[in-house]
Amino acid sequence: MIITRMSRNECIDVLSKARMGHLACCRDAQPYVVPIFYAYSEDHAYSFTMPGQKLDWMRLNSRVCLQVDHVTDGGWESVVATGRFEELPDRIGLKQERDHAWQLLSRHVNWWEPGALRPDPAALADHSAHVFYRVLLEEVSGRAARQEV
Amino acid sequence: MIITRMSRNECIDVLSKARMGHLACCRDAQPYVVPIFYAYSEDHAYSFTMPGQKLDWMRLNSRVCLQVDHVTDGGWESVVATGRFEELPDRIGLKQERDHAWQLLSRHVNWWEPGALRPDPAALADHSAHVFYRVLLEEVSGRAARQEV
Repeated sequence: MIITRMSRNECIDVLSKARMGHLACCRDAQPYVVPIFYAYSEDHAYSFTMPGQKLDWMRLNSRVCLQVDHVTDGGWESVVATGRFEELPDRIGLKQERDHAWQLLSRHVNWWEPGALRPDPAALADHSAHVFYRVLLEEVSGRAARQEV
Repeated sequence: MIITRMSRNECIDVLSKARMGHLACCRDAQPYVVPIFYAYSEDHAYSFTMPGQKLDWMRLNSRVCLQVDHVTDGGWESVVATGRFEELPDRIGLKQERDHAWQLLSRHVNWWEPGALRPDPAALADHSAHVFYRVLLEEVSGRAARQEV
């Protein structure tokens, strides 16, 4: 295996094509990480979450970290982005971003995340029960591994 | 999809069978998460890492979080464990654990993690360049999703 540092463009390419990643937040020096589904657009990862620990913690401390894995032909790529959580209330001005993200994410049968414990089935068909948020991806880095030839 | 809370035994089952997870640490309220390969044994996840940001941060703050995904037949399981990082120096008393973990992990061609940037190929064949550590898994919880029938 040869490991190389990825360029910013390569990192953005992985982030923009992926739909699933792992989002870490922390409170009082205790980190917490869960899988999320997201849609990338212009330096932001858009997602929805049900109320819970992740949302509580991100509201208290907006510093987060999104990591995305991408399996390549005979290797892998891993992109890590540190960023800032931003809650997007259901206001008219954000309707377009919200609908766009919902449209992208709802194509995946199981897009909604483990954060949703025993959700109301009706709520899943509608996005009103979810909190819409985005992560501004500030610093991005990535590493790629491939087989030696 | 129906989402249920997993029992502790179900969580341990996922943790013990998996080899790959996502480990989060944090420093100064900034979380950081990377994929790792590990071997589970008696409430601990054993792993190796090359020197780097993850190791530096875990040495400063031992509180970590390990998350493991498991894709099931038509659904998924996600297990989250908060725990404590513990470095295991290369002492005679730890040789057995170290060799056992190395043996389990080295079965995977690409087991070594993205933390190793441009590693010395010779170092990969030998574990002397790696730092051996374990995570004591203190609190474990998990959620399972399956299709409605």
